[in-house]
This record gives sequence, C-alpha cells and structure tokens, in this order.
Amino acid sequence: MEKHLIIIGGVAAGTKAAAKARRDDPNLKITLYTAGKDISYSACGIPYYVENLFENSNRLLVRSKEAFKEKENINILTSHKIIELNPDKKSITIENLETHETFEDSYSKLLIATGARPVIPHIDGIDANNIFTVRNIEDAKNIKKQAQKGHRAIIIGSGYIGLEMLEALQNKEVDTTVIELSNQIMPALDEEMAIELQSYLELEKNCRIITNDSIKKIIKDENNNVQKIETQNGQTYDADFIIVCIGVVPNSEIAKNAGLELGYKNTIKVNKHMQTGNKDIYAAGDCASQYNIITKKETWVPLGSTANKQGRVAAINITGGNAEFKGVLGSAVTKVFDFTVSFTGINEKTAKALNYDYEETLIRYRDKAGYMPGSQELIIKVLADKKSRKLLGAQIIGKGEADKRTNVIATALSAKMTVDEFLEVDLTYAPPFSPAIDPILTAVQVLKNKMDKKSQAVKYSEFEKYLSEHEHCYMVNASDLDECIEEYCVKSNGHKEVEKEPKDNKVFVFCEGGLESYIISQRLKEKGYKDVKFIEGGLSKCLKKKLHKLKM
Amino acid sequence: MEKHLIIIGGVAAGTKAAAKARRDDPNLKITLYTAGKDISYSACGIPYYVENLFENSNRLLVRSKEAFKEKENINILTSHKIIELNPDKKSITIENLETHETFEDSYSKLLIATGARPVIPHIDGIDANNIFTVRNIEDAKNIKKQAQKGHRAIIIGSGYIGLEMLEALQNKEVDTTVIELSNQIMPALDEEMAIELQSYLELEKNCRIITNDSIKKIIKDENNNVQKIETQNGQTYDADFIIVCIGVVPNSEIAKNAGLELGYKNTIKVNKHMQTGNKDIYAAGDCASQYNIITKKETWVPLGSTANKQGRVAAINITGGNAEFKGVLGSAVTKVFDFTVSFTGINEKTAKALNYDYEETLIRYRDKAGYMPGSQELIIKVLADKKSRKLLGAQIIGKGEADKRTNVIATALSAKMTVDEFLEVDLTYAPPFSPAIDPILTAVQVLKNKMDKKSQAVKYSEFEKYLSEHEHCYMVNASDLDECIEEYCVKSNGHKEVEKEPKDNKVFVFCEGGLESYIISQRLKEKGYKDVKFIEGGLSKCLKKKLHKLKM
Repeated sequence: MEKHLIIIGGVAAGTKAAAKARRDDPNLKITLYTAGKDISYSACGIPYYVENLFENSNRLLVRSKEAFKEKENINILTSHKIIELNPDKKSITIENLETHETFEDSYSKLLIATGARPVIPHIDGIDANNIFTVRNIEDAKNIKKQAQKGHRAIIIGSGYIGLEMLEALQNKEVDTTVIELSNQIMPALDEEMAIELQSYLELEKNCRIITNDSIKKIIKDENNNVQKIETQNGQTYDADFIIVCIGVVPNSEIAKNAGLELGYKNTIKVNKHMQTGNKDIYAAGDCASQYNIITKKETWVPLGSTANKQGRVAAINITGGNAEFKGVLGSAVTKVFDFTVSFTGINEKTAKALNYDYEETLIRYRDKAGYMPGSQELIIKVLADKKSRKLLGAQIIGKGEADKRTNVIATALSAKMTVDEFLEVDLTYAPPFSPAIDPILTAVQVLKNKMDKKSQAVKYSEFEKYLSEHEHCYMVNASDLDECIEEYCVKSNGHKEVEKEPKDNKVFVFCEGGLESYIISQRLKEKGYKDVKFIEGGLSKCLKKKLHKLKM
Repeated sequence: MEKHLIIIGGVAAGTKAAAKARRDDPNLKITLYTAGKDISYSACGIPYYVENLFENSNRLLVRSKEAFKEKENINILTSHKIIELNPDKKSITIENLETHETFEDSYSKLLIATGARPVIPHIDGIDANNIFTVRNIEDAKNIKKQAQKGHRAIIIGSGYIGLEMLEALQNKEVDTTVIELSNQIMPALDEEMAIELQSYLELEKNCRIITNDSIKKIIKDENNNVQKIETQNGQTYDADFIIVCIGVVPNSEIAKNAGLELGYKNTIKVNKHMQTGNKDIYAAGDCASQYNIITKKETWVPLGSTANKQGRVAAINITGGNAEFKGVLGSAVTKVFDFTVSFTGINEKTAKALNYDYEETLIRYRDKAGYMPGSQELIIKVLADKKSRKLLGAQIIGKGEADKRTNVIATALSAKMTVDEFLEVDLTYAPPFSPAIDPILTAVQVLKNKMDKKSQAVKYSEFEKYLSEHEHCYMVNASDLDECIEEYCVKSNGHKEVEKEPKDNKVFVFCEGGLESYIISQRLKEKGYKDVKFIEGGLSKCLKKKLHKLKM
C-alpha cells in the first residue's frame, strides 16, 4: 500500500506536522482534513484583531490554504469533519460539511490534531443570539462586528482569553463586565498575585470585575437576542452580547470511540513520541495529553507554542525519525493593557496541593536602573523545593518587562537548577534593561535567604491574619522612619521609637518593595528584638488600601 | 587584635562588600578608603546622564556617603588614596588627597576593590584641555558641560561606552565622529553582526563612523584647547572636545608592588573565594581576575554586575562564611539609540582562536507575531560545539527585544545545555511578546539542522567570496520567485527557470530572513540539484547594498 499520512485538524499542530513531514519525506502522500473553513491560523491573535490592532483577519493566517497546497504538495480539505475512526481497517469516515456526503479514506499513519473547544455552561438562555466563544476566525469576525462603541458586553471567565478580550472591548469603548466564579481572577496565578492584577485593572483601567459570582440566567428579547443577565448573587447587568471564556475541553471523542486510551482531563493519551496506544496513530496539539516536567504528572496546558512543537515531533516520528517531546513546564504569558502576567513551573497552590516541602518568596522591584526614565514595577514570586533546593516555578507580573525573565527561569527549570546554581548565572546588565542585579536574581537571593533561615519574612496574608486577631500591632516603616501610619488604626512607630518598646513585642517592618524592611528587620533582630518580621514584597498601594478597609 | 576589615575602593564591589559584611557580622569594624570623591555610583549610567535622560547627577549615586555611614556603621574616607600595601605587617599606607598627609592603618582582612582606569593613548597633543574619559561622576559632569548643540566631538573607540556616548552626544545635537582603529565597530561582536549595527547607525541615525583609522595628532589652539585632529589615514576633523573610550586597565599596581600575583591582563589573581595568594587579602570587581565558564580560561570582562556579585562573595568569605564566584560567561548588553546589542558566551572569533570544532548559524527574524504592530527585527547568531553539542554562545542584536533572550541563552550556557536540550525548553508565548516559536528556539533549531547536516547554509561572506571569484552565479529569490535580481550584475533566475539549468551548477537561494530560502534549497536538493546553497540570515537591505557596491 502507498504510504499515506492523514492529518485531522488544520491549526497549529496539524499544519506544522504536515509541513515538517513534507520536508522529511518529499514523496509521502499527505492529506489534511479539517472541519474548519481556515487552516493554520493564530487563534492567539484574535483579541488583537478584535481590538483593531490590525484590520484584515487574513493576517491571522500563518499561510493560506492555496499556498500550502501548492508549495507543500499537501491535499487539504477544509469543511471536512471526521465522524469515525476505524483503527483495525486503518480508515476514517469523513463528512463533507458543505455537501453532507460521507466517504472513507485509508491511512498508513494517522495524526489526530483536533484541538480543543470552548466549554459552554448550562445556563437558562444560553441558546440566545450574540453569545460567542473565542476559538476561530469566524468567532473573531462576529465579535468584532458586535464590539461597537456604547455596546455592553459580559465576559464570563477571567483567564487569559477573558482578560485579553476585556482589553480589546474596553479599548473599543464597549462597556464591559467580567464575571468570575472563583474568588480570584486569572486562576493560574496565586491569589496574592491575582490581587495585584485585579487592583491594576480596577484602579488604573476602571475595569468592572465581579468575582465570586456567576450567571444564573440570560434574559432574551423577543428576537432571541441577549438583553441582560442575572447572577447567582442576584445582580442584573444589561448586555448586548456575551463572550464565554471559561476554558476548553479536548476534542477527543473520535479517539475515545475508536477505543484509544484517554488521559488527564480527557486528552488523548500519548507517549513522548506523540504516539497513542495504537502504533500507527499519533496525536498532537490541544487534544493530546501532556506531561509536566516539574511534577512528573500528567497535565494539560493547551497552547499554540506547545502544539507547534508536538506537531513537529509527531511528524519526525511518523516519517521514520526519532524525536521526543519531553513535556511542559506550564509556561505562559498574557498582556492585559500595559500589565504583563507570566509564569512557569508550579505556583504555590499547586505546590500545596501536591504536598511539596517548598519555600517561596515575593518581591516588588523596578525592572531598570532607578534613574532611567520609564522604569516599571515587577512583582516576582519564586518557589523552590526545600530539600533538593531546585527551583519549582515563578510568577512574574507587572508593567515591567516580565515575560523574558520568566523564560530565563523556565530555562533554569528545564535544567533542574537549584537556587544556588541559578544565582551564579551571568546575566547581561545595562541601565536601560535592568538594575545591576536583575530582579530575578534578587528574588532568588531572597528565596535562598529564607531557605537558609536568614530572613524573617512573612507574607502579607499572614500579617493580615495577625491584625484581624489582635487589637493592635507594632509596625515600623523602613522606607521612612519618621512616618507614622496611624491611618491603618494600628499602633505604629518609627524605627527609633520602636526601640523603646519592650523587646519581646511582635514587630512588623514594612516598606514599599520589601528590601529595606528586610535590612531593618535584621538590624532590630541584632539589637535583641525577639519577634521581628518584615512583610515580604512590601505594602503596595493596593495592599495599603486593602489594609485600610480591613481596619475600618 | 580587634577584627578590622579595610576595603580599598568605593564603587560597586567595595560598597557591596561593605554592606554585606556589615549584615553578616554586625560587630565587625569596617573602614572603606576611596581615592574618589563619591562612593557607590553607577558608572554605567553616565551616558544617560550626559544625554539628559535625567538631570541630577546625584541620581547616579546608589547611596550617599552619609546614609551609608550612618545606616551601616561603616567608616568611609573619600579622597583617600592607598599608596602602599605591606602584607607582612598587615598594614596599608594612605594619603589624604586633600591635606596630602599620609598615615598607616592595620587590617585583619583587606579587600582590594580598586577597579580599573581608562587607557589613554600616547598621541601628540593628548595633554590638551577638553579630552575626557568616562569613568566617574566628575567626568560625567565635565562632558555634559561640553555637550552643547553645535559643538563638535570626536569619540575614540567604538566599544559599548563609545557608542553609548555617541547616542548621548548626537541626541544633544553635538556633531560627533567615531574613530575606530580596527576594521569593525563593537569589537566584542563578530564582524557580520557589527556590519548590521554599523549599517543601522549610518543609514538610520546618520552617524559618522570611521573604521580602520586612528588619531595621529591632536592640534591645539593657543589656550591648549582641542582644535582638530589628524588621523593616520591623513584626514582632519575639527573638534571641540574628545572622548577617549579605547578600553580600561585594572588598578593592580598596589597589589603587584606588594608581591601579590597578577593574572590575565594584569588583573589581581584570585581564587573562587575572591582570595589572593595571601589568605587575608581579597580582591573583587574590575581589578580582580575572572574565569570564563565556557573556555575554562582566565578572562576579563569588567562590568558592574560582576563586581557586585564578587563583592558579595568576598564579604561572605571575609566574615567567615563560604561562597564561591564560579566565573563569567562574558554576558553584556548595550543600547545604541533603538538598537540593542547583547551577547553571552563566546563568539566565532574566540571559537576560532581557541580552535573549537564548532557550528554556527545566523538568522534574521521578527521578535513578535508578524501581525502585531511594533514587531521588530532581531538578528541572532548562535554557536555550539560539534562534538559535545553544547551551546557555546549567542549574539542577539536589533531593534527587537534582544537582551532578555540573551539571558535565556546565558542560563542555558550556565547549565551546560546541548542544542537538543535547549530545544525542549518550554518558553512562554503570546503574540505581543514573540512568534509561536521564539526566535531563539528557531535559531537553535537551524543550528541543529546544520549540525545534523540537514541544511545547505552558507554565510553571506562565503557567498561574497564566491562572487568575487566568479563571473556570475545562479541566484534564486525564495521570497519572490518572479523577481529578477539583475541589479546585482549577477545572472539570476526565478525558481521555475532555475530548474531548466544544468543540475550541477552552483545555485544560491536567498530571501530576506533566511527561512524561506532554507525550504526552497531543500526542495531543489530533492529535485536533483547537486550544489544548492542558501544564504543564512538572508540578504538584508544593508547586505544587498554591500553586494551592489561589490559588483559595480
């Protein structure tokens, strides 16, 4: 039989695999079926198209169907949906979505790259018009049409797609409300990081974000159009349209029905060669299972960058080569207005859930030399395993340059570096790019100090807890020793006065960023204070506000 | 005897060590002598102060002498110069530069952090007024005073300080000429990278840069002020002032005279504990020897970031701890106007000089998803060892975000990653930050293809050499198969026509960035062409221009 590679799916993994298979085996017959109308598009670019950062949706196409067909000699059939897979016969049944005809095709090797689809919640009224998900170019065009000045939108979910759409809509002067079921936005972040992001969005960008609530009911007008929504907490919001961004599920039903094993979250289980339990069937991209390099457990972080790599690995193995996809760190980044949210490895929630014996720290730091114009704040949280001292993960957020710094940590995670090894990395330095010691090195240095028991850091949340349980506490402002912070209704003193207090009182030292308070807390300790703590990461404007509310 | 740490030098290493020693040993007596008037300043910030990105030179001070004295309880004596070191007596002789009195002081531990000083060339007229070096705040103020609109300046040397000063002066509308002795600017770069930088400066920023020349003579007026210069090549240039940036030498004479061993380039030889041959004498910062982690040889890359780390390590060991400074990768970055120049590890010149069996590649790529506004070009060159497959170094330059990508490679170098391991790193992706596959991954992928003999890349320089030796050659434009490039006076054909040519002709495929030509060259190879090459990194505007000149 002629060698025939059939690829199902035509976005990132499918087209990458097709192009790579063609390069590695010029004579291979390759057919690509996709249910969509377009192939090889950047779904990640949709929010920027909606925002009108560029006008023509064709720019989202990495390559056109025609160019791909002609240049790569690949038979591409769009609007063709697979409806059955028969591994024993090595055949698939396909439906032409335009003519509704079905037919069979036989493969020698099959690659399933069917991706994932948005989750649609079961809500009364969800069948209304003007409810959208964000997945393909059709969605993009429809949302862009709706996003007109003065319109009102509801975004359900505050993960990265939800927040990217928030930026897009708000910049188009659409009156937008985000509704998030959980108690924090951007669930991939630890709560203390999410608070900073939410504070930025609310205070600096006037965003309307409702947490701890969800839609109970969608109320429609006589034309079946969305009119308003009612939430579980009893609020109502007018809405001209709704965007649903509460996550995705893998398109793995075809594989499941064919008897292939499914893995974590119903992804199609594959080995490191991207091969399913059937040696002639591969899966890659959002529909395929993943392995987390840090936790050594199955995971699922469906992203275009990973899909590309997996498609490549699948193609190499399919054409007789030998390649492995070792797994993911869960690295991701998003930009919301001027604020970058990036992370890699595991966060504290995961470390707790998996019972890691970890240390963590949080610092707040400028991303450039202080005297350079345009230097911005970064908030960095890093975690390491106490026993092995290996780094476990980092979250870097803020208006400063965060994402590439996260990539530096991702590389360190990949290399299984300890905190001690990481501190030896010779990073570049010039004032327009960083302080003399890059903030990621400072963060890991602070983490190491904590691991070596050289630091009396407490998290803000612990401090808040202490305050809520005690009538008052002693606070020292390390940035300005004369400033009295009675506005927090907390008994507080300058540095010099605190020395007159009994030395066995608990004292909290704070500053804006956390570094000066670290030094002052050391100093007080040396002077005989038995219970001195400093608030790591300092007290940002948003935390001061939170504190103020708490004590009112 | 009371424990007494004397530190000589008060910039990066000296003050860092003082602060760290104080934290680690609250009771230690610490005295810091420095010949300068200021301590703890950022020399790297001087060009930005001259450019007037900030007005007050005090912003260059990391901390004031007074604050340092009071907060850290360190005795600081500025304008005090060490004139002799007597290791047997464990004492130093110091001169008060204001009163010219000399006196002795005794140490239990000594840290030499005397830094480096600019090299002054031996030129007729070098004693003129208005000749400056760039080292301390005094220099900065003097240059800023000179840098007035309409003035004419000569910068000698085109390393990073020279080019940073070029930006500063040109932005202040000073008519500036850079004179560089060697045949390329920015000697730390490989020549092909330096060409791109020079082309940017000349074509986009109208800079005047003279290579392969040097100053023969400085002509002064009757007031001993600089009037003009005459070069070895016989040119003359009017000048109101001259800035000398041809490198630095370590201030190691005191150590040498005391019998301490010197290392590479006359630095003070230290072990990984920053300890000299004398167990009670340490050295750190620009005056101390360094070890290159890649080459495993002594090196000397004097930078503030390294000085900080070394000062810290010295302080830990001095106060009874145990820390090592493992060495440098030679990572550095500079910004010249909108163009970033960054590198880590070794370049091709060094790899050749040290007889490495290396592979290298160069790619030209956008730093963001193509459809995002503001995406910029990056030029990336990476090297790896053929046998061990370990990465050796990277140079990343261009208007795109280069430096943090260099830091990702620096981390990989620190971890001794192979190209194969590096390709598995899970980097973040979102359209505002990178293409789906980050350019550094693409560069290393292309490098791997070359190492695995899957690519027919030639360097531009090899292509130019071929052209200079042959009447004509066959060229295929992979970006636009119909475009004929006769303007280069080269016989050239579109893709389809080249297939009519005899298949044993040498064919060069080119495009803008190098990726499409890679694919087309593969295709031609498959079709039976025996000698197909593609020009790696593509033909940039500047290379096309160069090519054009060559064939005229």
